Amino acid sequence: MKKVDRFGVKILGCGSAKPTLRHLPSSQVVDFRGNLFLVDCGEGTQRSLLKWHVSQAKIGHIFLSHLHADHCLGLVGLISTLGLGQRQGTVVIHAEPDFERVFGPQFDYFCPQLSMELKIQQHPTAHSSVIYDDGSLTVKTIPLRHRVPTTGFLFEEKPRLRHLNIERARELSIPVAYYNAIKAGADWTLENGVTVPNGELTTDPAPPRRYAYVSDTACTESILPLIQGVDLLYHEATYLDKDRDKAMLRGHTTALQAASLARKAGVGHLVIGHFSSSLHSADDEKLLLDEAQTVFPDTLLADEGLDIEL
Amino acid sequence: MKKVDRFGVKILGCGSAKPTLRHLPSSQVVDFRGNLFLVDCGEGTQRSLLKWHVSQAKIGHIFLSHLHADHCLGLVGLISTLGLGQRQGTVVIHAEPDFERVFGPQFDYFCPQLSMELKIQQHPTAHSSVIYDDGSLTVKTIPLRHRVPTTGFLFEEKPRLRHLNIERARELSIPVAYYNAIKAGADWTLENGVTVPNGELTTDPAPPRRYAYVSDTACTESILPLIQGVDLLYHEATYLDKDRDKAMLRGHTTALQAASLARKAGVGHLVIGHFSSSLHSADDEKLLLDEAQTVFPDTLLADEGLDIEL
Repeated sequence: MKKVDRFGVKILGCGSAKPTLRHLPSSQVVDFRGNLFLVDCGEGTQRSLLKWHVSQAKIGHIFLSHLHADHCLGLVGLISTLGLGQRQGTVVIHAEPDFERVFGPQFDYFCPQLSMELKIQQHPTAHSSVIYDDGSLTVKTIPLRHRVPTTGFLFEEKPRLRHLNIERARELSIPVAYYNAIKAGADWTLENGVTVPNGELTTDPAPPRRYAYVSDTACTESILPLIQGVDLLYHEATYLDKDRDKAMLRGHTTALQAASLARKAGVGHLVIGHFSSSLHSADDEKLLLDEAQTVFPDTLLADEGLDIEL
Repeated sequence: MKKVDRFGVKILGCGSAKPTLRHLPSSQVVDFRGNLFLVDCGEGTQRSLLKWHVSQAKIGHIFLSHLHADHCLGLVGLISTLGLGQRQGTVVIHAEPDFERVFGPQFDYFCPQLSMELKIQQHPTAHSSVIYDDGSLTVKTIPLRHRVPTTGFLFEEKPRLRHLNIERARELSIPVAYYNAIKAGADWTLENGVTVPNGELTTDPAPPRRYAYVSDTACTESILPLIQGVDLLYHEATYLDKDRDKAMLRGHTTALQAASLARKAGVGHLVIGHFSSSLHSADDEKLLLDEAQTVFPDTLLADEGLDIEL
């Protein structure tokens, strides 16, 4: 895919709270047309960025789902390193309102004179809201059900411009300066007053793509309206369904539950992650995958370095 | 060496501030007779403990040299994980007085109900003081010259009991209950009033062993009285001597300087670490080693997993 159209997700860490040698704690990068958005930042994230050749310089926004250690303890180190690297511009951290109280003293001490501007944008966690919006992308929160205030994130591409039939435009001597208006949906009026409808000048663009990140949460159908029909859903699947009670108690989801939600929401693909440390091997994780695929065949297991194009 | 006599150091991380794929940030474990003392705790330390099979359960004391990101950002994650593992007993963190202000809010948030007691012991950084003392070991601070308040740590074994000549003790019918007094240096008086001097009953124990950790610091001879004759010196050697000015400016030491200090102090062995990220390869680090060995041949390069027995 051309870089200008790229919309991809790269997994940097898909383990859970207890550290293991199989996985790193939660972190991933969303690459939208070359702009990078970091989602969660567990311990070790800055080193993973190096390992997987992700340019720190292109990370403008960092979204934290919640303030559990395995989702945010790599943040101060990363910001400190960006400063050491003389990063310019602005880096925005999106987090729930407790963030500043919990992280402020460390930023003050470890990052006193940053080369770049560091902005903290707080978002509510009880209802969905748009927390990022530019000409081509919005990011919305997805309220989740965990042991502390938690949200997922929905990355939504805005509708792209229509494809102009360039030969037809030339036949009709439409000025080049008017092409963007046509791509945006305008009709064209000939000198004789006859209108050529937009549908004769353009074809539909590819539909806008959507990616939903859902971690950590107890299984909840309340997210269905937001994730309905997304191209890609990353959903935590900490446990096998035999541990459903434990999952509920701890605010987590089983592989079977995640797959059932994916099916109900009619998503394109499902990636499951946030694996319990009690899964000791690739074979153990395969059990999660098998379970999920019984109800949603188009499921993938997350893994560090996995790169998925929407 | 028998575990009961073990006094060893295992390197967990020997990189410096900017992350690299070659090294982890500073951390190491001192194993004294099966009790583990963690020295510095850079990001990723808890995972390194897993990797190198170091038992978290045996870490009772954590010593932080200073509050720079690459020496302490693995701490909250480690403490949180100890709590998840239902660690019992007490864990003591030894740090300079700013520690509580900088880390307190994160401990409050991420570790609200720990299974073990967490104690913070502040130490002054301007002069040397004893910050740990038990029946067999003391730990003293070594004031250093860095950009923030910083100390190294001197681990000193206490003199061991003398070796009892058990055959001679039996010949003289010395009661077993009196053996420890003899080992501690007492003479023995026969029934006829004649004194058998301790020197005829015991032989000298092995001399007490000492380990000094010195990182980060500009080269300073002020540490010589404290590190004089230690069995092992870990000294930072961030740069080659061609970068001596940069080292001084940033509060660091060159390999040549570290080796000169080791020679002046007459230490047994020198391990150099805290390698600059500008050293990109094993060959680059070999240059550091070559430089140090020109003045102190018994120098080793630190590396993750390196285990040194005193």
